[in-house]
Amino acid sequence: MATKNKLFLGLFIHSKALNELEYLHDTAVGVDKEGKITIVERDCDEKKARETVLPRLGWKDAEVEVVKAKEGQFFFPGFIDTHIHAPQYPNAGIFGNSTLLDWLDTYTFPLEASLSDLAKARRVYTRVIHKTLSHGTTCAAYYATIDVPATNLLADLCYARGQRALIGRVCMNEPYTSPTNYRDESAEASLAATRASIAHIRTLDPTHTLIQPIITPRFAPSCTFPLLVQLGALAAETALPIQTHISENRAEIALVKTLFPRAVTGAADDSYAGVYDAAGLLTGRTVLAHAVHLTAGEAALVARRGAKVSHCPGSNTALGSGAARVRRLLDRGIVCGLGTDVSGGFSPSVLEAARAAVMVSRHVVFMGEAAPAGGVGEDREREKLSVEEALFLATRGGAEVVGLEERVGRFAVGMEWDAQLVGLGVVGEDGDAVGDEDGGDVDVFGWETWPDRVAKWVYNGDDRNTKMVWVKGRLVHARK
Amino acid sequence: MATKNKLFLGLFIHSKALNELEYLHDTAVGVDKEGKITIVERDCDEKKARETVLPRLGWKDAEVEVVKAKEGQFFFPGFIDTHIHAPQYPNAGIFGNSTLLDWLDTYTFPLEASLSDLAKARRVYTRVIHKTLSHGTTCAAYYATIDVPATNLLADLCYARGQRALIGRVCMNEPYTSPTNYRDESAEASLAATRASIAHIRTLDPTHTLIQPIITPRFAPSCTFPLLVQLGALAAETALPIQTHISENRAEIALVKTLFPRAVTGAADDSYAGVYDAAGLLTGRTVLAHAVHLTAGEAALVARRGAKVSHCPGSNTALGSGAARVRRLLDRGIVCGLGTDVSGGFSPSVLEAARAAVMVSRHVVFMGEAAPAGGVGEDREREKLSVEEALFLATRGGAEVVGLEERVGRFAVGMEWDAQLVGLGVVGEDGDAVGDEDGGDVDVFGWETWPDRVAKWVYNGDDRNTKMVWVKGRLVHARK
Repeated sequence: MATKNKLFLGLFIHSKALNELEYLHDTAVGVDKEGKITIVERDCDEKKARETVLPRLGWKDAEVEVVKAKEGQFFFPGFIDTHIHAPQYPNAGIFGNSTLLDWLDTYTFPLEASLSDLAKARRVYTRVIHKTLSHGTTCAAYYATIDVPATNLLADLCYARGQRALIGRVCMNEPYTSPTNYRDESAEASLAATRASIAHIRTLDPTHTLIQPIITPRFAPSCTFPLLVQLGALAAETALPIQTHISENRAEIALVKTLFPRAVTGAADDSYAGVYDAAGLLTGRTVLAHAVHLTAGEAALVARRGAKVSHCPGSNTALGSGAARVRRLLDRGIVCGLGTDVSGGFSPSVLEAARAAVMVSRHVVFMGEAAPAGGVGEDREREKLSVEEALFLATRGGAEVVGLEERVGRFAVGMEWDAQLVGLGVVGEDGDAVGDEDGGDVDVFGWETWPDRVAKWVYNGDDRNTKMVWVKGRLVHARK
Repeated sequence: MATKNKLFLGLFIHSKALNELEYLHDTAVGVDKEGKITIVERDCDEKKARETVLPRLGWKDAEVEVVKAKEGQFFFPGFIDTHIHAPQYPNAGIFGNSTLLDWLDTYTFPLEASLSDLAKARRVYTRVIHKTLSHGTTCAAYYATIDVPATNLLADLCYARGQRALIGRVCMNEPYTSPTNYRDESAEASLAATRASIAHIRTLDPTHTLIQPIITPRFAPSCTFPLLVQLGALAAETALPIQTHISENRAEIALVKTLFPRAVTGAADDSYAGVYDAAGLLTGRTVLAHAVHLTAGEAALVARRGAKVSHCPGSNTALGSGAARVRRLLDRGIVCGLGTDVSGGFSPSVLEAARAAVMVSRHVVFMGEAAPAGGVGEDREREKLSVEEALFLATRGGAEVVGLEERVGRFAVGMEWDAQLVGLGVVGEDGDAVGDEDGGDVDVFGWETWPDRVAKWVYNGDDRNTKMVWVKGRLVHARK
């Protein structure tokens, strides 16, 4: 996709470990025409790069595109949104005081159903791809709708715009919970439609350079058990990833217990995770959104199967679902990333999701105070996520959740260049902003350390701070 | 301040009641040269306004400035930030995992102390006034520092820029809790400095058209009891408003119990509210920030005294203070407004505070679930604040908190024109934004109802949606 070799110069920041950011000052990163990082050279300015790095790479000086971060700017890995419903984007912010199950019926299903109108789908999907790219989302795990042509259109648009994506046609055939005008006619029809969408994406991007299909049972209550089982078999057959929801809301959990008794599933217990496990859907390639109310037993099962969790803090608060205890999941070794969960979540920004993750982790502490016997343990402060941890979840964590940890999420030789150039607002001596660019709400006075600047970005940053975005070496967004 | 009579035309939205917004479509609002609303005429376009409204007001057509909200835009009352520390603005977003008391020592006191440098104070205060105005904050209850010249400078800058403000010189003389380089030498010195600042503001704006002083004991632990008593007496003598903090953090509450035994205060109990009451600081003109952990007895005392509460949801979460139960305060008849509490809160935006208030109210529900015996009651869903309620707190509630409910907070004849013009982003048929203006993250597709558009603004809006801002009829901010 990238047409030229590229040389990026300046400050690079990325996650070195869960709670540690690495600051690579005065560094040069070479990215080849395929979008792969070929060199990361520290203590290297443009002169040195041209004199020593380019010759080593065998790149001719005139054929290399040089992108320099200005003073105060930095390169950061692109964000990975591990859970987002593209068709729900027009409802961002529209949910009233509803909770999950009535929210689905009132707001969500009617909008999703309406996107079988391909003109409408094109309008909405074009907007959501532009919007998420502008916020630095270089990779998204999308839920589409049940409609195959509209799902395929979403894949086409992502591919054309250059956003890395997992595209899931939504499977839902349970008449009790799905509206008559918006459900698969049968398990077989659901499976056939899913295969059709997978086939389309394999034609579009045979080697999954950018786009890959993901098997997407909406959530257990939307599917009959035979459908879940067939989707589990399809995942085993195709080695494709799986995404679904789990344990978001207490009423939903009760519904699962009602709909999936052990007599039906043959599971060892009637837990929510147990239902997925019995259907063969709990795998090392499974993305489980929410996981707010997992029992200790379920968390152990999820960890054993190597399934990943998409933490959606904004959505969980907005829909009154609860506060997921991310620290406990991390402590068990469960890989976690962040999801905006538009439109259960109102913001399309993963940076906002990172902010929300920090805030929700503090509310988990308060819940522990409210219920000291609730098992949060004595060291309640440990529940808090730091800025560094939230950014890890937004990048490296997310990459591992969607199975791309060998390709994106950090800057290293062999990784692909999915990145954003971040610029913060600067306050002049007179108290006015320096320069013409809108730095948004991030105001740097000049005396701040780099960790403090990053914190300012996380807490007050928005798309105005995301100046340029690349996926696989290709420039896919530049702020006007 | 306003030099021309003005006629505003279009859609006006404001709070009619706590949970009800009023939508005044096709309305004309006349504002005279003093910034007062002289007429609110419904079903009135420009033609009708010129033909019938202007003659009635005796305003000559050519001398009237006409401001029309474009299709999709609306006028909304200016926001009132009932709690913000102007000198802390450079630390917005910088707090790590600290909690109140170590946050004060680590981040806050050093920065505040440094603003005795008037050049630095001018830079910071210029920025915070610009920033809050750009977010639609037409009135702010500011804490300054202990420094009189810097406090007076803040008043001067607000007056010159045209932001309505309550300006409080911070009183703190308790050696045990205040740093040696940043505290009043004695109660007498604290009182004298406070009087000096009051005198300056009275010279600047004798009739308090825009600026008024507010007596500001930082919080009980920062003050000796004799100082609190003298400040209570000063409030009684001057009839000035009072602002302070209460019951933000559990360690702070424990500290108050230690520092203010009943033997010292002579209070009926050793509660935090009781200390203020014993000092004569709990009045109908008192703004109490936070009130997170008030006991039922304290809430009853606050309600009896008619003191008001500034709810600071963003700050309370960020500093891990707790989740204030606003519904319980409202149910007791305690008047509540919103505070950004910069920089305990990271955002200078009252719209963000409204958003945070909605979110925190949902976490209060979760806390109730965690501790069913905790007294939240059976109807936990009642704890939730709606978009409409949050906007009421941001405008009318805030106006009452700072004692300006007869002058600002809604659109009615006799009120002053403190308002903002709000414009939302519009998505075209092709999925691109319509027009050149940056509509930020609010994307209107066109089929949304007005309440849904307002919700989109509350959840995804930022300063990009605040197109123009007026205080007392004067245009004080216009987005480029």
